[in-house]
Amino acid sequence: MKSKGISGKSIEYVANKEGIGPDCIAEGVSSGKVVILKHKKTWLGVGQGLRTKINANIGTSPDVDDIELEMQKLKAACENGADAVMDLSTGENTVKVLEQVVGRSPVPVGTVPIYQAAVESIEEKGALRKMDPEKLFGVIEKHAKCGVSFTTLHCGITMGTLERLRKNPRKSMVVSRGGAFLISWMIANGRENPLYEHFDRVLDIAGKYGLVLSLGDGMRPGGMADSTDSAQLDELLTLGELTKRAWEAGVQVIIEGPGHIPINEIAANVILQKKICHGAPFYVLGPLVTDIAPGYDHIVAAIGGAVAGMNGADFLCYVTPSEHLGLPGIDEVVEGTVAARIAAHAADIGKGLRGAVEWDFMMDEARTRRDWNAQKKLSVNPSRFEKIRSKAVAGSDDVCTMCGKYCAIKTVEKYLKTKVIC
Amino acid sequence: MKSKGISGKSIEYVANKEGIGPDCIAEGVSSGKVVILKHKKTWLGVGQGLRTKINANIGTSPDVDDIELEMQKLKAACENGADAVMDLSTGENTVKVLEQVVGRSPVPVGTVPIYQAAVESIEEKGALRKMDPEKLFGVIEKHAKCGVSFTTLHCGITMGTLERLRKNPRKSMVVSRGGAFLISWMIANGRENPLYEHFDRVLDIAGKYGLVLSLGDGMRPGGMADSTDSAQLDELLTLGELTKRAWEAGVQVIIEGPGHIPINEIAANVILQKKICHGAPFYVLGPLVTDIAPGYDHIVAAIGGAVAGMNGADFLCYVTPSEHLGLPGIDEVVEGTVAARIAAHAADIGKGLRGAVEWDFMMDEARTRRDWNAQKKLSVNPSRFEKIRSKAVAGSDDVCTMCGKYCAIKTVEKYLKTKVIC
Repeated sequence: MKSKGISGKSIEYVANKEGIGPDCIAEGVSSGKVVILKHKKTWLGVGQGLRTKINANIGTSPDVDDIELEMQKLKAACENGADAVMDLSTGENTVKVLEQVVGRSPVPVGTVPIYQAAVESIEEKGALRKMDPEKLFGVIEKHAKCGVSFTTLHCGITMGTLERLRKNPRKSMVVSRGGAFLISWMIANGRENPLYEHFDRVLDIAGKYGLVLSLGDGMRPGGMADSTDSAQLDELLTLGELTKRAWEAGVQVIIEGPGHIPINEIAANVILQKKICHGAPFYVLGPLVTDIAPGYDHIVAAIGGAVAGMNGADFLCYVTPSEHLGLPGIDEVVEGTVAARIAAHAADIGKGLRGAVEWDFMMDEARTRRDWNAQKKLSVNPSRFEKIRSKAVAGSDDVCTMCGKYCAIKTVEKYLKTKVIC
Repeated sequence: MKSKGISGKSIEYVANKEGIGPDCIAEGVSSGKVVILKHKKTWLGVGQGLRTKINANIGTSPDVDDIELEMQKLKAACENGADAVMDLSTGENTVKVLEQVVGRSPVPVGTVPIYQAAVESIEEKGALRKMDPEKLFGVIEKHAKCGVSFTTLHCGITMGTLERLRKNPRKSMVVSRGGAFLISWMIANGRENPLYEHFDRVLDIAGKYGLVLSLGDGMRPGGMADSTDSAQLDELLTLGELTKRAWEAGVQVIIEGPGHIPINEIAANVILQKKICHGAPFYVLGPLVTDIAPGYDHIVAAIGGAVAGMNGADFLCYVTPSEHLGLPGIDEVVEGTVAARIAAHAADIGKGLRGAVEWDFMMDEARTRRDWNAQKKLSVNPSRFEKIRSKAVAGSDDVCTMCGKYCAIKTVEKYLKTKVIC
């Protein structure tokens, strides 16, 4: 692939950030296994051989429609290590929110244009089925102009996919919001998905603005019962074909994936995506490895994300403790971001990514020295470290209240020294 | 193995709890792949083919020495699904704490007798090295008499293990508290580990009281740099030999395992333990898949525990957000217990354990119906569910504030019905 809009400067920038030679980055980009997201004067590399990246979703909803709150979430996510954010607003005036998010975000911004197209069609015309496909293409271009780096487009849902769904019904039929809008439109109008039918128009817009396509998984499973099923795989097969068409047009592609899947199916899902989509970067939502933990889905997603990352997923979309319950607040954004970051880092250690485990080595050394300041600075969230440690002040600064004077490290230290072990 | 003290009644009890035939349980027990912990008039099965169990550690420390607080932690852990608790007290009057824990606990209780033996020796004689091995055997018997179901004994650390450690030094030499006490005593006295040297005495006590031996891993790694190393494996090899001796004596055995290990090494660690220890149940602490997240080690352990469980670990020791920072409070006990329970359940789904995923199916159905009461009742921690949901009240009871009126499930429902899909 010869990508449009990938400059030597952007490759140098990403190479520097990743600590990898520019040739490797250039090779990754030309094979489609690495994408480069542009944001203002920065670039973010996502894909094979690079650090696993995390995305935080923000954005208003009809019931919680407060721009200032979303700006605070943006800040909280970025401060805690989000590599990208998606603005998923569906409240009033989504354009205004998006402009502010793009304007203030230090990291690349993504959107799901069908949201705005559907919401405005419902508001203006009274029904989703009346949405004009032109509206959707218009919104995609508007977002691209606005400075959005990547957009989720559910181009792989076809009438054939719906036929698969009919023949293989699910417990939770459709849980993707964008997918639900499109599928409903398709059924109501008896027409093919415009994003599939007119994929060349999508490619024209993406090519014109250097927009990265994040090909969405409208058929992602919504529960343990529905994982890795026919509808999901039918969509994936189409995404594999569209990936090649995008590459031929010089457009960069990311593939989105599940969703709710049992832990033992994650490796297979990554292998399938990488094979069918020719090595394009894999962007997973979670995955969530159980459905029974609302309030703790950031933990559920951290389990799935770490396993997915270890097996080759490149980009993890965070899940917050509010998932399945409501729109997250600032605290939930922080918890979700940190959990995703832990998962991504654990995956990078597991993949043997150069430079990843060195962070842990520094922490191990600080622990052995019982240097609490260094531990705090090295921890993924120093303020959380401080909060818990300050609740538990030990008799001696040298140790913590778990073992106090019976600290294992301290106990053996002097004896091991006498044996010249350490 | 013909285990001492395993009655037909206990096998029936466990079979009933697990929803498995008594013959399977009996076969598991006789092969050593399943152990049955006795607690008052109840029994808990742990091992191959059974639900993955979780343990919560409670107990005082020199700096936080409050029996009432520990009783509250016991209650919190059990209410949130702990299958067993370990009393790791090292404060004043450990016997009094243990009696109360055993008396009030609805689940089997475990201890680490070296703690009491070491702490009392330091108090009484002024130095750990002066600990009389008789003291240690005395404490083991005292705990057994007190009604303890299982004890951690680091019988596999030998002078040979320390030689391995000398030849293969670590970043974090020894992080097991019990291991640290024993190793320090061994080095200071130039003597072999009494729990190894006099393992027959250990077996006599265990046999007499039906105590299950949890053979501890004093050399468990304390950081990413030290995982799966010579010292850890040397100890494991000895534990494999001691397992056979215990079985010959009719004593039930669990093997304890790491600790800090990268996610990609977990499967290998489970396979090694199962092979070397002849299929004895595997009890892991975490495992922790990164060292950089103090304050979030319950999440780090949930990642590791789910992967370990999926690969065959049978028993997960929880880790709380306070790990590496201090003794946990009640909130941290709840968070640690729930995280471990999520990991265990995700593992059970992954292993295809009969009856596990049905819990998720019920949740999926409640979600599709948008039946919030049913979802709350089915969730792993209903009070957390309530807390988050009540912060985010949607315009309609039918949906949540994440998508509000644009709820994906609701959107497609009517359209799919017109296509007779659902």
